Amino acid sequence: MINIAVLGYGTVGSGVVEVVETNKKQLNKKTQQELNIKYILDLREFPGDPYEDKIVHDVDIIMNDPDVQIVCETMGGTGAAYKFTKAALEAGKSVCTSNKAMVAAHGTEMLEIAKKNNCNYMFEASVGGGIPIIRPLMTSLCHEYVEEIAGIINGTTNFMLTKMEREGADYAEVLKEAQKLGYAEQDPTADVEGHDTCRKISILASLMLGKTVNFEKVYTEGISKVTADDFAYAAAAGYTIKLLGTAKALEAAYDDEARAAGKAEVSVKVSSYMVPVNHPIALVNDVMNGVFVTGNMVGETMYYGSGAGKLPTASAVVADIAECAKHVGENIKVFWDAEEAKLADYLETETAFFVRTSADAADAVFEQFPDAMNIIVDGRNDAAFILPVMKEKDFVAFAEKLGDKLLGRLRIYA
Amino acid sequence: MINIAVLGYGTVGSGVVEVVETNKKQLNKKTQQELNIKYILDLREFPGDPYEDKIVHDVDIIMNDPDVQIVCETMGGTGAAYKFTKAALEAGKSVCTSNKAMVAAHGTEMLEIAKKNNCNYMFEASVGGGIPIIRPLMTSLCHEYVEEIAGIINGTTNFMLTKMEREGADYAEVLKEAQKLGYAEQDPTADVEGHDTCRKISILASLMLGKTVNFEKVYTEGISKVTADDFAYAAAAGYTIKLLGTAKALEAAYDDEARAAGKAEVSVKVSSYMVPVNHPIALVNDVMNGVFVTGNMVGETMYYGSGAGKLPTASAVVADIAECAKHVGENIKVFWDAEEAKLADYLETETAFFVRTSADAADAVFEQFPDAMNIIVDGRNDAAFILPVMKEKDFVAFAEKLGDKLLGRLRIYA
Repeated sequence: MINIAVLGYGTVGSGVVEVVETNKKQLNKKTQQELNIKYILDLREFPGDPYEDKIVHDVDIIMNDPDVQIVCETMGGTGAAYKFTKAALEAGKSVCTSNKAMVAAHGTEMLEIAKKNNCNYMFEASVGGGIPIIRPLMTSLCHEYVEEIAGIINGTTNFMLTKMEREGADYAEVLKEAQKLGYAEQDPTADVEGHDTCRKISILASLMLGKTVNFEKVYTEGISKVTADDFAYAAAAGYTIKLLGTAKALEAAYDDEARAAGKAEVSVKVSSYMVPVNHPIALVNDVMNGVFVTGNMVGETMYYGSGAGKLPTASAVVADIAECAKHVGENIKVFWDAEEAKLADYLETETAFFVRTSADAADAVFEQFPDAMNIIVDGRNDAAFILPVMKEKDFVAFAEKLGDKLLGRLRIYA
Repeated sequence: MINIAVLGYGTVGSGVVEVVETNKKQLNKKTQQELNIKYILDLREFPGDPYEDKIVHDVDIIMNDPDVQIVCETMGGTGAAYKFTKAALEAGKSVCTSNKAMVAAHGTEMLEIAKKNNCNYMFEASVGGGIPIIRPLMTSLCHEYVEEIAGIINGTTNFMLTKMEREGADYAEVLKEAQKLGYAEQDPTADVEGHDTCRKISILASLMLGKTVNFEKVYTEGISKVTADDFAYAAAAGYTIKLLGTAKALEAAYDDEARAAGKAEVSVKVSSYMVPVNHPIALVNDVMNGVFVTGNMVGETMYYGSGAGKLPTASAVVADIAECAKHVGENIKVFWDAEEAKLADYLETETAFFVRTSADAADAVFEQFPDAMNIIVDGRNDAAFILPVMKEKDFVAFAEKLGDKLLGRLRIYA
């Protein structure tokens, strides 16, 4: 019998209980173990809940019970979650989590403690909800030199952008609706300004390199400046608009000499991008997520599924539970060191841009970029262009020159 | 040191050698082993080949070498491949293969032998080329009751259908071009009539159920009857056309009582389907593959990548090599029994149909199906309809009634 304790009986925590109970027969068969939810830790009472008798308020009951082998941390945050995760791992209990804030901030510390105590710290659910992405990266693609990861990994903003595209609606309008539907928080900053995506792409980039990508150093923009006007031009030019977290391996990522010479290992960005409508990631709509991974041998691969939601996210936690149940007392090595990866200065990285300008800016655009492509949409009194690939710093200089005439700009994913 | 022998130095076999050699540093790091290609078995000589010195012509050299722990079977067929795979497993050497014919016909036998000899039989590359799909099914989704798998798992036919769609070209024309480019064989039957897809979806369906789906009993149609006319109507109605292998879990799949009552466990079909253009699988184009998997908890997921080609397929074989290298002397349990799953009689299964008829058939169509949707394309002298969901046998009866007036028909994926 393998006993599980769930820390935090909120959306994901109650989902974990539901997935384990609903699929117990399959779970027991596949792990060749008998799994049992023994405790649910929460400060609240849940009178009438079918698992009421498992609720405890004192975490020590869990930590001191040698029969608990697996702990699910579905509390969120980095306060109590940090303390409890550490205590569980130190007691030799594997921890499975959906808490991306914990993983992004303290992942390597927890992995180290797990290793010392012959247990595991697993976090499939921290990126892309139910999508199997962490495990494929660590197993199926472990031998690849991953060249690039690009992901739509925030359901809230993808719901909003999809709605803006389909309805021609403006940002403020869809935000209100997303809040009404419960997809967006009352303070939506973490989602719409890209902070959530930033943590998630930093986790993926860290696993790509085997080092730590410090999320606090990642250049991050959200979707709050995307307008219905941008979408009108994007559609005319055969694009849609998506919030992407992107991580590109650079020369020094896999080359010791280049690294010794101090070159950057990776370029990580979070930004709204124009994406060609025939790119597979363009069909990742609504609250779905998709992660595009390019390996040096396998080429392009993509992983698609529900990026959020109670049961999909819980399913990913339970996938980790199953893996832990198959490996009780055995640490599965995760290649992710605490050493910080050297990030490229984003101003020195290259990208293509879309710009929307006042109508009288066309001369200035073509003077600087004779190859700029003018996007024509009838009956509009602004103008729009696709500019060639350039360094970010050169774009900044050009944007300064345009001044008020620059009405909007997006990066282009290619 | 872990020594590998590659059986068959053709496209995939030479790809395996290339992936192992190119990515050796990464592979050794991630497996925490030193991997070495020791032998390459082929009847031919390869003068001047960089790995010429590893070529052997006598399989016994490999089988009798206790230092060889992993064998890659990249020969194809079920003759010598069967004999050699069996011998290797009996000698306690793990076998990694891209050979779907072997896996579909003898998979469970080989898994059984591997288990007895504490080694592994792995076949990630047998379905979907480089796409990680077998391992995610067996790990990340192991606890799910998978409800449906639908895959574009044949690159040749997907290349052809994509070309027909984009160029309005007809079947015979694109087949010729695919043959010229080397994407289709001179005898294209296995691809275009769906036999290759049939073997692959049978493997996936077997893993879904944990029992054997006998590919010889799977209803299989290919793409050879798809016409430019069908594509014209599909486009007008918001669809594209794809060759899908589909496996739907039925009541008895996961219900002992229903199974005891003799009910069918699964419906497996291979057919050209109309797919809505906004479904993620509709953007799986050219030689790419995509597998859509729906679980009872995680919901919809999709796995996308190169379905064929030397390096992507070899990469999947090397993913298995890495897994075997991490588990030398240890059998990883695969839930796939020899017992045959009970397939539904396809005539009793339900689907929606698209039909193309002569213009004078409209009355007959609406008489039988008042809810049929007429697809209008200007300037044509045939007619087309989307019919409601019905039993396959009812469609057969209707098609007989229409006789010569039925010009084409496709299933609709929804």
